[in-house]
Order: sequence, then structure tokens, then C-alpha cells
Amino acid sequence: MSISANPSTTVTSKVHDSIEEVALLDSVNDDHDDVIVEMKDPMDSAAFLTLLRKSLTTWRMQGKKSIWIKLHIKLANLIEAAVKEGFWYHHAEPNYLMLVRWLLDTEHTIPANASHRVRVGAFVMNEKREILVVQEKNGILRGMWKFPTGVIEQGEDIHVGAMREIKEETGIDTEFVEILAFRQSHNAFFEKSDFFFMCMLRPLSRDICIQELEIEAAQWMPVEEYAAQPSVQNNDLFKYILDVSLARVDKLYAGLSPVHTRSVFSDTKDCFYLNSSDLNWPSRIGN
Amino acid sequence: MSISANPSTTVTSKVHDSIEEVALLDSVNDDHDDVIVEMKDPMDSAAFLTLLRKSLTTWRMQGKKSIWIKLHIKLANLIEAAVKEGFWYHHAEPNYLMLVRWLLDTEHTIPANASHRVRVGAFVMNEKREILVVQEKNGILRGMWKFPTGVIEQGEDIHVGAMREIKEETGIDTEFVEILAFRQSHNAFFEKSDFFFMCMLRPLSRDICIQELEIEAAQWMPVEEYAAQPSVQNNDLFKYILDVSLARVDKLYAGLSPVHTRSVFSDTKDCFYLNSSDLNWPSRIGN
Repeated sequence: MSISANPSTTVTSKVHDSIEEVALLDSVNDDHDDVIVEMKDPMDSAAFLTLLRKSLTTWRMQGKKSIWIKLHIKLANLIEAAVKEGFWYHHAEPNYLMLVRWLLDTEHTIPANASHRVRVGAFVMNEKREILVVQEKNGILRGMWKFPTGVIEQGEDIHVGAMREIKEETGIDTEFVEILAFRQSHNAFFEKSDFFFMCMLRPLSRDICIQELEIEAAQWMPVEEYAAQPSVQNNDLFKYILDVSLARVDKLYAGLSPVHTRSVFSDTKDCFYLNSSDLNWPSRIGN
Repeated sequence: MSISANPSTTVTSKVHDSIEEVALLDSVNDDHDDVIVEMKDPMDSAAFLTLLRKSLTTWRMQGKKSIWIKLHIKLANLIEAAVKEGFWYHHAEPNYLMLVRWLLDTEHTIPANASHRVRVGAFVMNEKREILVVQEKNGILRGMWKFPTGVIEQGEDIHVGAMREIKEETGIDTEFVEILAFRQSHNAFFEKSDFFFMCMLRPLSRDICIQELEIEAAQWMPVEEYAAQPSVQNNDLFKYILDVSLARVDKLYAGLSPVHTRSVFSDTKDCFYLNSSDLNWPSRIGN
């Protein structure tokens, strides 16, 4: 959501047929008749409620559609007042809660909340057909030799996150090749879903240096030795992942690789992942 | 996060060297030394704070790792107390806020919040090389003839969501073929990201019946007419999408199609999307 106007604390508005200066909550307006209030400084909840009510009256007269209030966690005392004024929760991150209210009589067009977490796994094979594997210190796969995996950070492209995770966990530099396949899982944590993008990357270095906090051990392992593990043989997902990885190395299997496109949401570039092999296009993003 | 034990309100615990019955918050324990408290009924915030403190003491003695509190929006009055006791926000949905606290001295291993919204677009072409296009009533693409698009619902597979959206917007029944490509965008709404999966589907019916709330008009349009629109010609994403769609129809372009795998998170099935053409596998999911 882009923000186009400057904050303001007062507006001249017509209330009860008289022109008066009304104190309002600090806010910015974006391009879509939305109002965004970001609260960071402590405020008494009664004072907040008074300001909020006056502000809502003004915003309604101005024809605003949706009102967003971002409350820092230090301002948890103000949530109840906002809820009483018809706000509901949109999303939350560790240090803030975003509330929203729709001011029109029509059905709201407020964007859906994020529903998926994004993780990556990495198939990295060297010229001796050894693959890069790790053992994790924690988690349900502890003790198994597995591909490096990790969570994509906020605002991070999949191919960038894959290279970063490999570097962090093993110290190996890589060049991104393709997304080979991906898995969608539901109810991964509470009611939220999970994407796991299986990526192939080319190693650019050889010496392993593990991240000791999460990783117990890492090594270059002959792919046959990896494949022979019961934990791989008894898991249909791990077998599929190995099948597509080896098909990419030994056959004509093609995955999806990134090209940049202009973003519709911001000034940054988006990544469009497509089967560039089948279109005879080279990947257009440098690594 | 699976839940394996029954709720309980009291435990017998050793506090101050005496055995006493302590009233605790209703909670369930999952398989991983986590405690999940779900609050639905009104409670005074002072009473909640007292119960929460006693409960935290007990859970710490029991060696619990993480404590989750799910507060219905009607219980916004309790958030401040939880924050004062060291809880932070994990995620929120319209009618609840999930708070979490880590009880150990180690770095926490709490799962990352959802970061991406998931949308789909649909390329549906009939035997006359006409494609299914719609005009939306609202939004930045109003007035343009475009592919049907929509947001994936909570817990919905991509291929299921694509068929549902086409049916809802246009009344057309379809059979899912492949994900042709996808786009990742950042800062799509506030700091959250957006996936847009471009799908190909085969039409199984012909008569259009539009959903009047969101859709102004829908039609079967010759693909050349769609391609000639300035809004397509001037947008590199729309051109890429058209290129891969036509390459899928006219050339050997292969996208990703779903197979089912056993879920690691729940008793349901996951979907693994892979290039089954290149593996010479038929798609293994019925439509």
C-alpha cells in the first residue's frame, strides 16, 4: 500500500454546520481513499478513544473507504478502544498489530492477509556427483542427512533466499539454477500454510564451514549414499525430490527460473519464474 | 501444530515447598512441549493476569518451551496483561490475536509467521482459440479484458482454488492442467508479499454466467484480440504470461502439475507440483 500524502494532525471540517478545527489522529492517506494511522508513542486509552471517534467522523465525511491503525506492541492498551469502535484485526508481527475498519456501506475490498510461509530446499551437486547435505541440531529430521533448507525472509526473493541459506548453513557459495518443484502444505502451523520450493544450485566453492547454532554437521556426500537412507526411501516427498533433482542433472527435466518484471505494487522489481528452457530463453537474472 | 492432550484446569504442583492445588489457565499441550491456551469467554484482566502468572510458574517448572495464547477479539482487554508478562504477537486474523512467549533461556525456535498471500490467474482456451476473459467492476485493472483471477482461500490447494475462482466468476467448469509460471512480489500490502500463480485449465463447459458482485462482463475472446490490447502490450508481465500460455498450447512448453504426497504436518495430503511432462508421469490427481 503506497503512501502519498504527508501526516497531518488537524483538518478544517464542517461539523454541525459550523467550521471548526478538529484534533485528529496523525495519519497518512494512500492513493485509494485509505487512511493509515501509525501509533508509536504512549497514549491514554480514553484520550485515544476520543480522538479516534472524532477522526472517524471526519474520515467518513471525507468519503474514506478503509481506516488502518498500526499499533506498536507497547500500545496494547489501545486495542480494546479500537475494537469497540468497530475495528478488527488484519495482521500482526512480533512488535505490532494492524487493525482495520471499512467505512462504506458496501462489501469491503480489504486485501486478504498473508496465508503462507515460504521455505526453500537446495540440491547442490559437485562434479563428483556428491551433494551438499547437513544434519540439523534440532527438529523432527535431527540425525538425518538432508538438503540444506531454510525460511525465506520478509521481502526476499526465493532464489536469493536459497543462496543465502546455503551460505549461512554451510559456507558454500552457489549460483542459482532453477526451482525444480514445490510443495504446498496446509495446517503447517495452526491454520496457516507452507510452501516448500525445491531449488537446484551450482556450487561455486568447495570448503564447508558450518553454522554451529543450527547445524550439527555438513558434508559432500555421494548421491547414492544419500538416496540409500531409510528416511529418504520411506518418504514419498523425499523420493520425488530426489527423482526431479536427478532428472534435472541426467535428463531433460526443466524447472522454473527467474526473470525480472516491473512491480505493480512498488518501485522494486518482481520475479517471474517460468520454464525458460522450453522457451529457449536464458535466465535473465545475474547471480 | 498438533494437539495431543486434553484440556485441564488444575495441576498438582510443588510451590514454596508445599503441595498445593493451583488454578491455571485452560490449556492443551502439543507434542513439542508447547502449551496452547485458547481464550473465548470474557474475563476480567486482573483475574487473567493472576491466573497467567501462576500458570507461567507451573509451565516453567514443567519444562515447557513455548506458550501460545489465542485471544478472541472480544477479549482485547486481556492483551495488555499478556504483553506485560513477556508475550509478543505471532499472527492475527479478523477475529483473534495469537500471542506467544518462549520460556527457555535458549534462542527461540518459534515458526515464522505467514509472509505471502497467494493468488491465481487462469488461462482457459477453447477449441476455437478463444480465451475466457473478464472485466472487473473494481480495482486498478477495471475496464481491461483480463484472465479470471482470485485469492486462494485458507487451506486451499492452488489447483482447486483456480477451478473454484473460474467457476465463481464465470460459471465455467474446468479441468486443471498445469501451473505455467508464477510471480513473487514484495510490499504488495504493507510489508507482506504476494504470489501469483498463472495456471492453464481446460474448459468443460461453454455458457458463461457472471458473478455480478465483482465481475462487470465476461466473454470468450479470440486470443489475438486479447493480445492486441494496449494494457497487455505495455506490460511486460502480461506479455510473459501470454507467451508462456501460447507456448503451452502451440509448442512443447511444460509447467508444473500436482501429485499428492503424505503431509508431514497433518493427516491430510500435501500437493507437490512438478514438471510431470519431463518425467513422463501423468498427473496423479483427479479433477
